[in-house]
Amino acid sequence: MQADLICIGNEMLTGLIENSNAGFLARRLWSVGIEVRESTVVADDLESIRRALQRAFAGSEIIIFTGGLGPTDDDITREAVADTLGLKLVLDQNWSERLESFFNKRGIRMPENNRKQAMIIEGATLLENPGGTAPGAIFEKDGRLIVMLPGPPNELEPIFDRSVVPALKEFNRGDLSRLKTLKCCGIGESALEEKIKALGNWDLPPISYVAKGYEVHLQIKGKGNAEAAAAAIEKAEIRLRGLLGDHIYGSNDDTLAGKAAELLIRHNLTLSLAESCSGGLLSSMITDVPGSSKFYKGAMIAYSGEVKIGNLGLKKELLEKEGQVSQAVAIAMAEAARALFNTDLAVGITGIAGPEGGSAQKPVGLVYIALARARECYCKKLNLGGGRKAIKERTAQMALDIIRREVMDSSPTEG
Amino acid sequence: MQADLICIGNEMLTGLIENSNAGFLARRLWSVGIEVRESTVVADDLESIRRALQRAFAGSEIIIFTGGLGPTDDDITREAVADTLGLKLVLDQNWSERLESFFNKRGIRMPENNRKQAMIIEGATLLENPGGTAPGAIFEKDGRLIVMLPGPPNELEPIFDRSVVPALKEFNRGDLSRLKTLKCCGIGESALEEKIKALGNWDLPPISYVAKGYEVHLQIKGKGNAEAAAAAIEKAEIRLRGLLGDHIYGSNDDTLAGKAAELLIRHNLTLSLAESCSGGLLSSMITDVPGSSKFYKGAMIAYSGEVKIGNLGLKKELLEKEGQVSQAVAIAMAEAARALFNTDLAVGITGIAGPEGGSAQKPVGLVYIALARARECYCKKLNLGGGRKAIKERTAQMALDIIRREVMDSSPTEG
Repeated sequence: MQADLICIGNEMLTGLIENSNAGFLARRLWSVGIEVRESTVVADDLESIRRALQRAFAGSEIIIFTGGLGPTDDDITREAVADTLGLKLVLDQNWSERLESFFNKRGIRMPENNRKQAMIIEGATLLENPGGTAPGAIFEKDGRLIVMLPGPPNELEPIFDRSVVPALKEFNRGDLSRLKTLKCCGIGESALEEKIKALGNWDLPPISYVAKGYEVHLQIKGKGNAEAAAAAIEKAEIRLRGLLGDHIYGSNDDTLAGKAAELLIRHNLTLSLAESCSGGLLSSMITDVPGSSKFYKGAMIAYSGEVKIGNLGLKKELLEKEGQVSQAVAIAMAEAARALFNTDLAVGITGIAGPEGGSAQKPVGLVYIALARARECYCKKLNLGGGRKAIKERTAQMALDIIRREVMDSSPTEG
Repeated sequence: MQADLICIGNEMLTGLIENSNAGFLARRLWSVGIEVRESTVVADDLESIRRALQRAFAGSEIIIFTGGLGPTDDDITREAVADTLGLKLVLDQNWSERLESFFNKRGIRMPENNRKQAMIIEGATLLENPGGTAPGAIFEKDGRLIVMLPGPPNELEPIFDRSVVPALKEFNRGDLSRLKTLKCCGIGESALEEKIKALGNWDLPPISYVAKGYEVHLQIKGKGNAEAAAAAIEKAEIRLRGLLGDHIYGSNDDTLAGKAAELLIRHNLTLSLAESCSGGLLSSMITDVPGSSKFYKGAMIAYSGEVKIGNLGLKKELLEKEGQVSQAVAIAMAEAARALFNTDLAVGITGIAGPEGGSAQKPVGLVYIALARARECYCKKLNLGGGRKAIKERTAQMALDIIRREVMDSSPTEG
């Protein structure tokens, strides 16, 4: 079964915002056995939406709209879809009251504009939106399943997972997932591809590769009917896991931070950080994981030499002798954090994120990451390319992988 | 003048990679006065490419393809475009020799597959690609300008800037439209639109709104010839700045963190943080700004009660009496950070990012942000919606706005 995505919003056509919803929806649709045939971005404009809908209607069984459900005058998805399909818009009394109470709770009078967000296509099922004032909607028309979702990803994603996925499974009975993503780290994209090619000419299903900072994601596509596709993916996964071992940290929706967190919790180990050049990004990635307070105590973001000395307690002589960006300082930071926060593990990071501050000996992109435990301390030196944000990102990813590998190799009782 | 973007690649339809080329191309096209009418992602498939091209041909004067120019069997953009438009592919002898020497230099025999990268649509101009083996191409057909570019952003972007922009300026003589983005915070999207509407029916050019967490970005579109467009935008900007005042923090490429940083540097003030629920995100946003070490000393990420007591020095009784998420604790955190890091300003943040940890009195999304200075301390209470990441993001944005407003109102000598 196939789906078309129609993403509505002038802001995407002017490059004001990226269309991140298309990627999320594609991954989710594939996971319930639905292929994306085409994905289009069109303007907040009646004729553009009409043309896109007519095309999708002719080509796919499922049509998913994103955006244009807001309160402003240029939010016209509801009107355009109803008009194109010859359907009526009616007021949903319940949602209208919900909207009023949403604004009342915030002590604001509801702007008159917001009332149109309670208008819904006749016969459609309203999809609750706990994160905003625009509900989604889902309905069938002439054998097509049509879904309308608000544009902001933090609203769209929970609505999709909670309300749309079950409806899609119902609509697409019998068909199964034909796509699996394996997520790797610690190996480059070309090295990975060469390793897989060297396996020889076995009946591998098509694989796509993409590098994401320090990670590489592999996508395996199973073709044919559901059973054949699932079997081909399983067979390929077994061979790839045998080949790549620990380089594979997870699959599909797994994240490196989530995997590190899982391992720390399973081994009952606590963690703290002392970050310099990564500036809090590692801490933020760890605390993106729900439940991270179970193992994560905190961090010292030591962005200046004064803080490294005055707050982490590093020796002034050490910093002067080795320089702020050095293996000795990374290790001292990790050990200081471990003592300060009283944790089993601690990571210390120092480096040069640029664009200023590099030199011939210590260029932009030079980063040291240290991991301290009770009886040992490990340190890794990196020479990273890319701009300031890319350097921060790769540093944080690498640190998460160091934590993951360290804990993976621990016995569960080790402190 | 209008352009259609046709981005070719299965990996975008499975969600393995995001289509970041569309945003880049949109911003560049607008900067030379060309609107993007529609942007489509289609599969590496003859019929899909044909349909998309026929549609674009009927709707826009400029058609830009990305992707599908590689050496593998599923790279068929050249063949599909030639076939659809009834044009021939011919071997470009020059590029063929360039390819052979590219492989010779690396000591590899050129794979036979790569030869098709030297096939070019008859009459087209080849666009040099210093970063890869796939050249771009540009040609006119029946009054349309057609551009074909390789998919990898690090190849596409330099080709576009060097070879395509001049051709577009030549093709689009005289017809210029203009665009300006004003970035606001401290006011919701609907409230903003009502305020602007209340100005009455003046000759405002079209404005788009987009909410980005706690920020709202306005995009003003100037139509007509270059002078008229620029004048319309300038006039609108003056009125909007008069209306919205401090809610506008910047324009185009400005960021909230960048503006806060600029103000702190200009007033010669230093900053430190004590973050709990935002988990280091505020620190990371501040350190994304190049040169932030000029004013930013560091942060204590106090993710547990032990750290708030043991490392920030908060009184155990205070935490027990008021609870970790309270105004008193936010203020105590800010004051502790200010003393610990010896800075002019310090921000303290405590809250509940969820999904666990909420209660009837203190629900998920309750956040306190305190700002401490020498002689005063300010605290703001928020009730935020959305998931864990959205709560973290809005908290950090709000804190940056609090810093910005505080420093904006300072006299330059105040400590």
